[in-house]
Amino acid sequence: MKKGGIDLDIGVLDKFAQEIIKEAGERIRAAFSYDLIIETKSNANDLVTNIDRDTELFFIEKIKAFDVTHRILGEEGMGEKVESLEGVVWIIDPIDGTMNFVKQHRHFMISVGIFIEGKGKLGYIYDVMRDDLFYAIAGEGAWYNDKPLRKLTPVKLEEAVIGINASWVTPNKRVNHEKMIQLIRKVRGTRSYGSAAMEIAFVVSGKLDAYISMRLAPWDIAGGIIIASEVGAIASNLKGEPFDFLSQDTFIIGNPTVYQEIIANYIEQL
Amino acid sequence: MKKGGIDLDIGVLDKFAQEIIKEAGERIRAAFSYDLIIETKSNANDLVTNIDRDTELFFIEKIKAFDVTHRILGEEGMGEKVESLEGVVWIIDPIDGTMNFVKQHRHFMISVGIFIEGKGKLGYIYDVMRDDLFYAIAGEGAWYNDKPLRKLTPVKLEEAVIGINASWVTPNKRVNHEKMIQLIRKVRGTRSYGSAAMEIAFVVSGKLDAYISMRLAPWDIAGGIIIASEVGAIASNLKGEPFDFLSQDTFIIGNPTVYQEIIANYIEQL
Repeated sequence: MKKGGIDLDIGVLDKFAQEIIKEAGERIRAAFSYDLIIETKSNANDLVTNIDRDTELFFIEKIKAFDVTHRILGEEGMGEKVESLEGVVWIIDPIDGTMNFVKQHRHFMISVGIFIEGKGKLGYIYDVMRDDLFYAIAGEGAWYNDKPLRKLTPVKLEEAVIGINASWVTPNKRVNHEKMIQLIRKVRGTRSYGSAAMEIAFVVSGKLDAYISMRLAPWDIAGGIIIASEVGAIASNLKGEPFDFLSQDTFIIGNPTVYQEIIANYIEQL
Repeated sequence: MKKGGIDLDIGVLDKFAQEIIKEAGERIRAAFSYDLIIETKSNANDLVTNIDRDTELFFIEKIKAFDVTHRILGEEGMGEKVESLEGVVWIIDPIDGTMNFVKQHRHFMISVGIFIEGKGKLGYIYDVMRDDLFYAIAGEGAWYNDKPLRKLTPVKLEEAVIGINASWVTPNKRVNHEKMIQLIRKVRGTRSYGSAAMEIAFVVSGKLDAYISMRLAPWDIAGGIIIASEVGAIASNLKGEPFDFLSQDTFIIGNPTVYQEIIANYIEQL
């Protein structure tokens, strides 16, 4: 593929990305046994920090060996400073859902988005303990392991199940909580899993109909947003504008019908 | 075992219960393939109702063949009317988390509690899609598959992660939501999974520190409450009284330190 001066075979890049994501997952599962967690309970935060950093370093080392010009924007900040999306940029969260990692030993994800000249090309959300991969190649489709993900079908808001943290229906500085209360009364149900990447993976696979957050970082959503467009989910900040990938921003992803209605009738930013 | 005139080998009963729970799980997994759910999307509610009922009938048939004097109180109401806990009573929820069943194809549980002369003796929560069993024999311990579940260790409320639905922090008729808002601001995090049995299984295995609901039925909690006492979790209604097994009631289960503090400082029933 020739693209803005970058010569890349997307198939090769995809194969490489899947390999290192699965290898990173294997390393995390090995580093973290049930007994290890119990023994170091008082140091659980240190443990997760170490595994988080080790995993990010693992990605950096592998990616730089693959192509030294690729840059890495990671949650742990172990890569170089990334102030633009020029060239090839990997946006990586080595462990999304660290509290789940510590307490539940499940429900944490590796999230990876690969951008080429500012455009999302490859997106991955990997459920480490389930060994489950949600992924997409822009323009070619999305998959859940070896099965294609279907295009989302319309759902009425009153039949929707949405991911939202309970905090946002209480008085807060970011959004009119009275409208959020109306929203959760309108929908069929709400869920909260403690991992943005997990909730996004659930939206793109139709297990949730929308997910809303008042503050996310690029690495929380980079993988998911690329999968989203392949299945017909819409993702943006809460103003309906593109998410700002070089900062933090509000976020919503949803089935199109549900997305439109939530933005139009239930979101009032403060 | 001789108990109040009932002659029962608890080990035999446990083995039998595990066998039929796993067989019921296998039947559900077989009845419900990904494609089946998609094809019958418009009839998803009928589908789940049918599988729910079939599963309850399967339990009734098996249990009556095992011992015709055992009685069954099930969510689907296919057993006889149970107005007391005399003798041996099985309290069964064939699918706890039906919305998860329909939309997510995961995160639904079979919950079974076996009571002898009013006392909880055997408790089971089975995660059907993971093939994961949490269970306990009263006085003998609790297990997660083949591993013993450890006694819960103390946790501070500010480090706790609790299961609570977002509705309960909004104005409602059951509980002072202002105090619930204080609670969710105090704790480290909240989760909501859409299956009471799943959230209870997470509390008894230390994956959550408490779970609160304003209205549950006996079948939602019968399995879990028996596991709770083996790991040192406390379960009651929100007045701190024993849950009413012949009706619906409020419910809290938690790590003891967290349980006490929530009941004392954050629950004000209306």
